[in-house]
Amino acid sequence: MSKHDWHATPDDLLRVARGFELAAVDPDATPGFRGDKHDGVKLLAARSDELSDLQERLFAASRAGTATDGVLLVLQAMDSAGKGGIVRHVVGGVDPQGVELAAFKAPTPEELAHDFLWRIEKRLPKPGFIGVFDRSHYEDVLIGKVRGLADDAEIERRYDAIVEFEKQVAASGIRIIKVMLHISRDEQKDRLMERLDRPDKHWKYNPGDVDERMLWSDYMAAYQTVFDRTSTDSAPWYVVPANHKWYARLAVQELLISALEEIDPQWPKADFDVEVEKKRLAAS
Amino acid sequence: MSKHDWHATPDDLLRVARGFELAAVDPDATPGFRGDKHDGVKLLAARSDELSDLQERLFAASRAGTATDGVLLVLQAMDSAGKGGIVRHVVGGVDPQGVELAAFKAPTPEELAHDFLWRIEKRLPKPGFIGVFDRSHYEDVLIGKVRGLADDAEIERRYDAIVEFEKQVAASGIRIIKVMLHISRDEQKDRLMERLDRPDKHWKYNPGDVDERMLWSDYMAAYQTVFDRTSTDSAPWYVVPANHKWYARLAVQELLISALEEIDPQWPKADFDVEVEKKRLAAS
Repeated sequence: MSKHDWHATPDDLLRVARGFELAAVDPDATPGFRGDKHDGVKLLAARSDELSDLQERLFAASRAGTATDGVLLVLQAMDSAGKGGIVRHVVGGVDPQGVELAAFKAPTPEELAHDFLWRIEKRLPKPGFIGVFDRSHYEDVLIGKVRGLADDAEIERRYDAIVEFEKQVAASGIRIIKVMLHISRDEQKDRLMERLDRPDKHWKYNPGDVDERMLWSDYMAAYQTVFDRTSTDSAPWYVVPANHKWYARLAVQELLISALEEIDPQWPKADFDVEVEKKRLAAS
Repeated sequence: MSKHDWHATPDDLLRVARGFELAAVDPDATPGFRGDKHDGVKLLAARSDELSDLQERLFAASRAGTATDGVLLVLQAMDSAGKGGIVRHVVGGVDPQGVELAAFKAPTPEELAHDFLWRIEKRLPKPGFIGVFDRSHYEDVLIGKVRGLADDAEIERRYDAIVEFEKQVAASGIRIIKVMLHISRDEQKDRLMERLDRPDKHWKYNPGDVDERMLWSDYMAAYQTVFDRTSTDSAPWYVVPANHKWYARLAVQELLISALEEIDPQWPKADFDVEVEKKRLAAS
């Protein structure tokens, strides 16, 4: 079992490029991966060590004060698509000390009194860290658009503001990976029904989920516009088929590994004289 | 392999009670545990599921808005005693979404301008969360005392302020577990030497660590006073022998499990009509 079970990288295969059509993506597919669920689960565990090792190098630089790069993983999806599972099973594989997780809920009155990017900017990861956004500023052009929470002119303004904002973030050294976990309408129905069937899952269910579900095609259209307007070289979108949880986790893991390999973090050089310190320590 | 490899609970065995003497604790010991390292590593993995399950229940209540309880794990130790390993291998076993980790460094000028508890209070875990303090307000009566960063009267005031503060925190529903990871002076020398021997560990080494090490007995005396003055029923200290990393991790894991079992978090009841929702979902 090796990373060579991928016959093409998720970075290439799943990236939203010009002409991308969400409607053409099959949420049931497992593009680029040769194996089945059993292979996928096994590879996830194996590659977790690689991710963890790269993350430790990145974090080391932050401790040494020499970090200039960081990673930001943005997770967007319809309800029950598996954002939580990505956090638990992919991000959960690295040292919690190097992770900054931000879950964005409906904005508070204070947040609403500011520009929509105000609360986002405050949660950007520091150099040396992996930041994870569970929902994000994209809610402001998704539910914001579908539910008419802002007028058309404001929604238009936001696409441009997002592109400009992310460009600056990327220029500051943060690799931005934007992921939409893509499930089918039927798969969502099954998952929500399971939450209703199991008392230990009731807490995950919200009647509002069905209200949003009724607007499925509006949401898909809003996502399509998001991809058209905001997938850029410095902050690309990836649409990850997510009917198979194991595949989605594996793909996002690989995207994180790619970003870290691109940063290629090195162990910081000692800013002290190692031999002198050995003598001091030995004498102590 | 089961939790019955413990013939007495760490909660009872390691708790600092009246008359406790730090000097009498053997950092090499593995009190209460029947097995060896192999057994310990195996049990850590097995009990991780139990911890994770309890944590999910606790977190569920926070999502449902019904959480009243939380957990705060305070980690204190001499350098290289294994705080990071606890975070990585014990806390890392639960869903990152339910964890709030705070690493306290030397205070900033802004923090110094406030009372020493000001920065601490802001990082207390919300109900439903497990908070972890990597160092804490105890630095202000440890390095603060050993290095004379505050005068004797101020140090005295702090012990009382801490007891009062923690009493309020506990009354608010936060179970406080205060852990000192206890390594021997020799073990520390070996661990620091390893950091110097390995270029991939240089970033973990700080020449200041040797300076603090030279004051070992002063630190041990300062810890003893901390235990005498601040180990209370509502916020007990635990001294965990930590020369064996596997033992320390296992013991802290068990302390967390005990605290969560005491909270006994229940899956939140649905605040909606399950049958009505099933029909709505089926029709959607």
